[in-house]
Parts: sequence; structure tokens; C-alpha cells
Amino acid sequence: MNIILLHGSDFKDKNMVILKDHRKDHIITVLKAKIHDSLLFGLINGKMGKGIIINIDSSKVELKINLDKNPPPALPLTLVLALPRPKMLKRIIESSVGLGVKKIYLINSWRVEKSFWQSPVLKKETLDALSIAGLEQAKDTIMPQIFKKKLFTPFVKNELPDIAQNSSMFIAHPKTAIPCPCSKTLLNQSICLAIGPEGGFIDKEIKTLELLGFKTINFGSRILRTETAVPVLIAKLFPDFF
Amino acid sequence: MNIILLHGSDFKDKNMVILKDHRKDHIITVLKAKIHDSLLFGLINGKMGKGIIINIDSSKVELKINLDKNPPPALPLTLVLALPRPKMLKRIIESSVGLGVKKIYLINSWRVEKSFWQSPVLKKETLDALSIAGLEQAKDTIMPQIFKKKLFTPFVKNELPDIAQNSSMFIAHPKTAIPCPCSKTLLNQSICLAIGPEGGFIDKEIKTLELLGFKTINFGSRILRTETAVPVLIAKLFPDFF
Repeated sequence: MNIILLHGSDFKDKNMVILKDHRKDHIITVLKAKIHDSLLFGLINGKMGKGIIINIDSSKVELKINLDKNPPPALPLTLVLALPRPKMLKRIIESSVGLGVKKIYLINSWRVEKSFWQSPVLKKETLDALSIAGLEQAKDTIMPQIFKKKLFTPFVKNELPDIAQNSSMFIAHPKTAIPCPCSKTLLNQSICLAIGPEGGFIDKEIKTLELLGFKTINFGSRILRTETAVPVLIAKLFPDFF
Repeated sequence: MNIILLHGSDFKDKNMVILKDHRKDHIITVLKAKIHDSLLFGLINGKMGKGIIINIDSSKVELKINLDKNPPPALPLTLVLALPRPKMLKRIIESSVGLGVKKIYLINSWRVEKSFWQSPVLKKETLDALSIAGLEQAKDTIMPQIFKKKLFTPFVKNELPDIAQNSSMFIAHPKTAIPCPCSKTLLNQSICLAIGPEGGFIDKEIKTLELLGFKTINFGSRILRTETAVPVLIAKLFPDFF
């Protein structure tokens, strides 16, 4: 936790906060903070800044909060991700949110195992908790939007054209010959990046995406797990963000 | 498993292999392969190529193997990593090996919890198994060398100068103002990259490394978990490999 995130409801008045939950435990046990110490706080979907401890005991931490800084810039990236297996999904949500991704579409694909859609990881509470963990790691406050799309063709044909409008559209696809661009010319451009399941999108799915304007890109001869491919591709596509 | 790795001892003669273990199960159950099918094989620390199934039943798979291709190029990178917590270490070894890292030094640092050094993940058999999983994912055959260095100062003062000789030397350090280079001028240059523990190297450790010629680099205002930072930094430092 490199920033402690607050909800609007945590505020007793404009700049007074009292914490009694796991955040209080974190401040006492992990940060080992004392009275008058200053820590980094952020309001979920709002600004970030300092909080000074004005009272602390084993039951509560009382803080004077001054949020005056903007969170770091979001990546202009929409991630369209064939639903990974639940354990991997957890790590990918947390790391993608940490990297600054604000829009994630979890979609179906021929090679996505049906059982993955039943996973409790897909519950809103779990996705929210993973997103908050990602923000707390990366010192960010802006929650991502995560959408679940259980039907490939209706999503790609009816919704994706609007979603990907005005973006460069790429499919991470180990079988293609076109290398992933790493170019200043892409800088600050919106990108919509589709990543297939283990084994990749099937040819028919690739063709459907290509019809919308998506271009396949590879990243060398190595086949990477999705959780490794996501940070590699983000670092290549947005070199000036890292 | 995108390549099936063989040991020299698997060969009955120059190009005949019989598999009866988990690799046989993988070929039958996951790949659902049949007689005459051709699959990708590699000799550990050797070449890769095709294997044609000439006999298959529930107890064994018999293959004619022809290894004529070189594995993908290794990254000219030495990773010097403050020992992460065991769960994270597992994922970092697997993903780094998948990315082509061939030299990993696991070192101590002030903020490394002592208990981490007791983890069974550090046993040679476990590190080998994780490395093989990384190679099998990435279609590579060359095992990494993984070294354990339990004393920071003697390692840095007595061994690291030789290890990092003729390399660009960087420390991933969120607190520095110098951004991570992403430059063609670095291309194919050897790099020695040091990554601290959760909370970072302490100032004294940074200074000791700087005395050897290491330069601190950051990757934006976001603080990334080591398992996310490694692929991001590798993609930035070696843009032409991905």
C-alpha cells in the first residue's frame, strides 16, 4: 500500500477522517506511524495529498487531510481481454490497474473455458477490491471500469466499433509477422488492444476483429503468459509513461 | 507448454525418444495428439525442432526427433534481484526465464525479510522446475543460471564488479528523477539491472551500488510490484526483442 485510499463517507467534515478498519491496522502495524506523521492519502476517483495524524491509539487513527494533487495520468488504452483463468485474472486486474489501465473488457472467445465465467473473482466486490489493491500499489485514485461480455460476436459487432473508435486497434497475436510498434508516433494516441486466451484467438475471431480495423502484432518468437504479455505490451506501446 | 523439453537421457538412440511421464500425459490429454502428428521439442541447453509420433498408447509415446533449430536469442541481461517473497519469486523466475533472462542473482538487502531465505522455493529442484516451466511457455531450451547471495556487501564489493563489467548498470529506483532509457543506442548492449525489495534499497545500498557505476532509473510515478516492473523494464531496455 503506497497510498491509502479514502471513501467520501470516511470524512467527518471537510478535512477530518477517522479510520478504524484495516487501514488503521496498516498505519499502525506496517507503517508504524506516530502522531504528527504525514502519510499519502487519496480520495477514490478524486485527488491525492497528505494526511497528518492528529490522534492515534489501538482503536482508531484520526487524520487531518489535505488533498491537492491530481492522480497520475491514465493510460489512453482500452484492454479487450479474453477471460483468463481466475487466478491469472486476479493478477492481471491488479497489475493492469497498477499500470494505469482504466477500461477493461473481459470477453468470451472460443478457447475460453466456460467454467471461468462462474468464478467468484468476477463478482463486482472482488473486482473492486483487486482494483483498489492495484491503485494502492501504484499511488493512483481513479477506479477502472471493468465490463463483462459473455458473447463474442454480438460484442465485437455491435459494441466494439464504438469502443475502439478513434483508437489504433491491435491484436496481440504470436502467429503474425508484424512486430509490436514502439514508436513515439503512437504517443498519446488512444489504443484498443485485444489479447486472446491461452492458445490464442481462433482464425475466425481474428478475421472478425480485422474487419473492424484491428491489426495483429507479435512480440518476438517467445510466447508469453497473458500476465507477462500485458506489461510488456503496455511498456512497448506507451514508452513515455514508464 | 508450447515446447516439450527433453533430457539427453530421454534418447534411446540418436533420434528416438520414448516418453512415459507427465510429458506423455500432456501429449495425450492436453495436445490430444495422434500417430504421425508433429510436435515442437527441444533438448535442454540444446537445439529445438520437430518430433513425429510413431507410436502412441496410454502408457507411452514413441517419437522420431529432429532437432535442427537454434533456440531464440537470450537477453543480454543480468538481473540482480533483492530476494522477493516466495510466492512472488516463483512468478518472477518463471516470467523472467520466459522473457529470455539467463542470469539471475538473488541477493540480500536491508528490507528483505530474513525468513524468505528459508523458503523451499530456493531449493535447486524448485528453481529448475520453475525455469523449465518458463522455457516451455516461451519456446526456449537454454536454462538460466540462478545464484543465491545471502550477504549484500561482500557480494556487491567482491563479485558484482566482475559480473557487471562491460555492461550498462542500472538500479530500478522509483525515487530517482532519471527516466528509464528506451533507446536504440542501448540495443544489444549488455545490461546489469538491480531491483530492490518491497520498499526499495536503502540509501546506503544505493550508494554502494552507485560507487560501482550503477545509475538509478525510474519508470514514472507509479510504483510497480517487482513482478510487473521486471517485464516493463525488460520491454523498455530491450525494445527490439519483443
